[in-house]
Amino acid sequence: MLAYPPLGCTYTKGVSLSMTSMAEQLAKKQKEISVSEFFERNRQILGFDSPTKALLMAVKEAVDNSLDACEEAGILPDISVKLEKVDDKEFKMTVEDNGPGIVPTMIPNVFGRLLFGSRFHAIRQSRGQQGIGISATVMYGQITTGKPSRITSKTEKDKPAAVKLIMINTKHNTPDVVGPAPPNDYVMWDEKEHGTRVEINLNGRYIASKQSVYEYLRQTAIVNPHTNISFVDPDGNSSTFTRAWDKLPPPTKEIRPHPEGLELGTLMNLGRATRVKNLKEFLKTDFCRISDRLAKEIVERSGLRETAKTTQMDLDQYKALLGAMQSAKYLPPPTDCLSPIGEALIRKGLKNVLDDMRPEFYSPPVTRSPRVYSGNPFQAEVGIVYGGNLPADQPVTILRFANRVPLLYQQGACVLTKSVESVDWRRYGLEQRGGSGIPFGPAIIMVHVASTKVPFTSEAKEAVASIPEIQGEIELALRECGRRLKVHLNKKDTKVRTKAKFEIVQEILPLIAEKSAKIVKKPVPPLSGTITKIMNVVWVDDSVTYEKKRHRVKVDIYNYTPKQTRFNLHAVVPASSIELLRAEPRPVEVKEDGKITWELRPIRSTEKFTVAFELEGLEPELYDENELYASGIDPSMIIGADPLPGDWDVARLKVTEMQAEPAAPAEEEEEEVDYDEQTEALNDD
Amino acid sequence: MLAYPPLGCTYTKGVSLSMTSMAEQLAKKQKEISVSEFFERNRQILGFDSPTKALLMAVKEAVDNSLDACEEAGILPDISVKLEKVDDKEFKMTVEDNGPGIVPTMIPNVFGRLLFGSRFHAIRQSRGQQGIGISATVMYGQITTGKPSRITSKTEKDKPAAVKLIMINTKHNTPDVVGPAPPNDYVMWDEKEHGTRVEINLNGRYIASKQSVYEYLRQTAIVNPHTNISFVDPDGNSSTFTRAWDKLPPPTKEIRPHPEGLELGTLMNLGRATRVKNLKEFLKTDFCRISDRLAKEIVERSGLRETAKTTQMDLDQYKALLGAMQSAKYLPPPTDCLSPIGEALIRKGLKNVLDDMRPEFYSPPVTRSPRVYSGNPFQAEVGIVYGGNLPADQPVTILRFANRVPLLYQQGACVLTKSVESVDWRRYGLEQRGGSGIPFGPAIIMVHVASTKVPFTSEAKEAVASIPEIQGEIELALRECGRRLKVHLNKKDTKVRTKAKFEIVQEILPLIAEKSAKIVKKPVPPLSGTITKIMNVVWVDDSVTYEKKRHRVKVDIYNYTPKQTRFNLHAVVPASSIELLRAEPRPVEVKEDGKITWELRPIRSTEKFTVAFELEGLEPELYDENELYASGIDPSMIIGADPLPGDWDVARLKVTEMQAEPAAPAEEEEEEVDYDEQTEALNDD
Repeated sequence: MLAYPPLGCTYTKGVSLSMTSMAEQLAKKQKEISVSEFFERNRQILGFDSPTKALLMAVKEAVDNSLDACEEAGILPDISVKLEKVDDKEFKMTVEDNGPGIVPTMIPNVFGRLLFGSRFHAIRQSRGQQGIGISATVMYGQITTGKPSRITSKTEKDKPAAVKLIMINTKHNTPDVVGPAPPNDYVMWDEKEHGTRVEINLNGRYIASKQSVYEYLRQTAIVNPHTNISFVDPDGNSSTFTRAWDKLPPPTKEIRPHPEGLELGTLMNLGRATRVKNLKEFLKTDFCRISDRLAKEIVERSGLRETAKTTQMDLDQYKALLGAMQSAKYLPPPTDCLSPIGEALIRKGLKNVLDDMRPEFYSPPVTRSPRVYSGNPFQAEVGIVYGGNLPADQPVTILRFANRVPLLYQQGACVLTKSVESVDWRRYGLEQRGGSGIPFGPAIIMVHVASTKVPFTSEAKEAVASIPEIQGEIELALRECGRRLKVHLNKKDTKVRTKAKFEIVQEILPLIAEKSAKIVKKPVPPLSGTITKIMNVVWVDDSVTYEKKRHRVKVDIYNYTPKQTRFNLHAVVPASSIELLRAEPRPVEVKEDGKITWELRPIRSTEKFTVAFELEGLEPELYDENELYASGIDPSMIIGADPLPGDWDVARLKVTEMQAEPAAPAEEEEEEVDYDEQTEALNDD
Repeated sequence: MLAYPPLGCTYTKGVSLSMTSMAEQLAKKQKEISVSEFFERNRQILGFDSPTKALLMAVKEAVDNSLDACEEAGILPDISVKLEKVDDKEFKMTVEDNGPGIVPTMIPNVFGRLLFGSRFHAIRQSRGQQGIGISATVMYGQITTGKPSRITSKTEKDKPAAVKLIMINTKHNTPDVVGPAPPNDYVMWDEKEHGTRVEINLNGRYIASKQSVYEYLRQTAIVNPHTNISFVDPDGNSSTFTRAWDKLPPPTKEIRPHPEGLELGTLMNLGRATRVKNLKEFLKTDFCRISDRLAKEIVERSGLRETAKTTQMDLDQYKALLGAMQSAKYLPPPTDCLSPIGEALIRKGLKNVLDDMRPEFYSPPVTRSPRVYSGNPFQAEVGIVYGGNLPADQPVTILRFANRVPLLYQQGACVLTKSVESVDWRRYGLEQRGGSGIPFGPAIIMVHVASTKVPFTSEAKEAVASIPEIQGEIELALRECGRRLKVHLNKKDTKVRTKAKFEIVQEILPLIAEKSAKIVKKPVPPLSGTITKIMNVVWVDDSVTYEKKRHRVKVDIYNYTPKQTRFNLHAVVPASSIELLRAEPRPVEVKEDGKITWELRPIRSTEKFTVAFELEGLEPELYDENELYASGIDPSMIIGADPLPGDWDVARLKVTEMQAEPAAPAEEEEEEVDYDEQTEALNDD
């Protein structure tokens, strides 16, 4: 069976080697691998697999850190990024922020040690959750240029800033401070009260395309409108993305683990490490959403005692506990550990990017309420933009974001993309071969996932793994947006077709009448009655204008039917704290969720009737297309308002439920997704 | 600027917090993260992101390890895999091999510690290069079931086997041996002389689809025909993949780093760690492909002295050295660090899978000669299968392999897929929208990359990163295979069309003749002359049969032209050590690369002439379609043989160059690829 001499053994003809010596030979080669060494050799896992990408990754890691630090310290971020060409390959990157700074003793570990950080153990949304990014950049700079990184940090107004030159000892994953020698390790930095400057030399390649540093910063500005970013490119051109919103997103709060989707091993680890004394206390203290009553119930169902010591429980007892925990119903996790962008700012952000494309339709964005996968809360957000100058014959553009960070690479490997691919967009008016895959059409689809732990497929944080729960939520949001797109397209389509008919009738009928009149030598008869008979529709034309800080809405209703008509008109306006002014006629109902209803007076045949109202307190871009419905009328008789959906109230609530804390535990499963069923489909990539 | 109180600080109204206290607050949260802890939280990076995938990953890690160990010890692998259902979620996996075993003291570290292994530091092709896989599986089992993994290992015939129950302390990334207590830590294991048995309990989900354990084992058998694999699935059904080849692949040898694509930092690390005394010795000893002459030349060009101490050189000196090293020309790396599957076994493997599909064409596989990316040797191999019962209206199937391991997930993220997508397959007869993307058609494309370091996009080893050099080589191989497919399709197409014409002429002409003869009351005239005038082609029909260990080739040439014809016939047969027997007529030339040429005698109009020969020493599946060319004749006159390409010799040499060590340094860049240029395109995913 010994076909050739084993590695490292000298082969002596005729002498059979015993397997022990072979196992021992192999054993000698067994060695520990330092995490730096591992990533030094596998830098592609960190995203440093091409010079172009390396430059982008470096900027991304530094900027993400700055944003996290500023937000944690409650500071509106001012960030400047500068790239300078050193030689043919080498660049110098400088990223400066106005964050709280880093205490000098911490600088070496933060920048010179992989797997070291402040955000890994905290259950709340943040950009940097791995403790790898910036030190990986320092390491990449050192590998490619041989140079240390220079960190300058100031933590207090009237004190000098600390300066350190950092390298990484990759054999041991430890930081080496290689300079500067005192007194140069402190410098004055008067223009800043506090902040950090990171200077890293690295090999790279600068491009100005879709997947560039500029594009990353631009998209970062979109989803972080509270940030000022300035950028100087290697040719010295500068650009600025000015703060569009001077409030920070609400700070995210650390939460305890949510019991949903917990694994046995994790539960045992928690139970053995807990500081409380007994099982019931453990459940109440170490998890969120377990009340005293629920803890009691779980303990009862598990067959254990409330006073059981979790540190001494065995495997079977933990198994019983987990079973009991899994069969209980929990409130969704608290929402304050997450910081979604929100419908208003998504819209603002998208409008900001797409001004020159003049799209005809911005679908109202959808922010789903938080869910949980394997104990980690997450939230999906989606927006769709359609038409205008967007290219009609190409796949739609997908803008992907995770925890407010743009994802520019690995689109094909990302569950955000897969979610888009698995929706049948033909139902919503986009072209799609076979009902799956990236649809074609003049559209941009924006997807954001916020989570206390985004399950990236690698340390490069370029793509989100195929977690069925996440895919399910994104798909629901996409379908909701898709439905709205379809309503828009239907409305547009019917209007276009009816208008064409209208124009023909209005053009031809008078000609016929004139001709006939001439022949029979009688005067031309009045035609409006005839036209209405032929058209036989109620025509609704609406408009929104923004003037003097007010949205003015006008809805003109033309009765082109031979009879008097009467129906209810419904409009939906953004719910968030808006003043409805001077509505004429008065609506019979204005609900908190933004739903307005008019019971219209009878409108005579050929009469035009106008409904008008004004909204105050809304950002201009937050309202530009009316959502109109009609009830109490044959839907085929009315053009320009959709029939009121049967589940209207539910549908609206769905969109706005994230505003409020749900009242009852997990009962709003309106569209249940069988995640288990989905697993196979998901993995079928 | 302070918009809200920083995290962890109590906000006191009117009291401004100093930034230092903020920086200090944040500093307190800075913590080291153990690598186990990191992957415990980010198990999706290891591929354990769904129950289905988890089961597959576990089997894959265990089997890959077994194959590596057997091959390193020179043992033909016998591997058995068994999956048993424990409960609704939990499975027990047992993988057993006949490898050399693991010495007992090593077992804890090998299975209970991430980033520990024997293959990480060695520059040669192996499956497990990360030191993560199997311990990650142990950790996943422990997280999901709370149970330890059981390892049994025997290293010597007449001794008992060591048994250990292993868990991982994830806080510190250290192994915990939790049992069994002596004397149960040694057991008799008589049925094996040596080997290892790994038993891991883990949560999972068993499916029998495309991305299943069965499929992984089947594809493993394809690219490892020297392996016996038996499998018992959770329902108790067993399958066996029997060894089809009883030779091990040649053992891969460790090499020193290749100087091409070396980074400055890596060079400095090597220079500072070297055991030799001076610069010239360092170049000669620590790298492959640097001869005494070349070392001298590099030193000279760098402006340094031969006796310079590399341990004391500074950054600028290293930069000068790197510059000089980069401007030198090197031989490709030695090929014995790699173990490509080879054209013969690729063909055998593909035939093995596809027997029931009855494809009409197996393109001769292409194995490119080794190249280097960032100092790492690699080699690309490609095969194409076409037609038969393969579905014609679907995207082609892509079979991806890296270092003889099938890749079943993340197809979209993989450079192997991207290479397929970036070839314009319309030129080679497949349907493809816009000339890029996965083509449609009845085809299977198999791509294998072998490397001393496969640049996987993550620790899950599911996809290969977009390295321009790798993509370039795969594309060249794909185009070569595509060209052969096109030749086949052309031949088939012309034959089909001409045959149709032929049949019509042969059917109608006699009818017309008969009718006319009847009318004019004369006998039916002989028609062969007329038919040839209408057809006016030389028709070549060929066949291959395999009998009595010989391939019998027959080429029938029909002269359906009104004139005598004379031309040269060329055939290409596999070059590898084949006996050409009883060629009739005798060829004028038989080249080493398998090219055979006949100068045919004149063939009269309507005459049939036959060329026949036999090949001995070839596996039956290695030759089943003739590659025929003709010269000295108007190409439009001949059906069934392609015109001899102008670059024929070059083209043939291209395919066979991997057989021999190139004679001159890097001068065979026949199709130079500008890798820099490609970077952008590549990253545009």
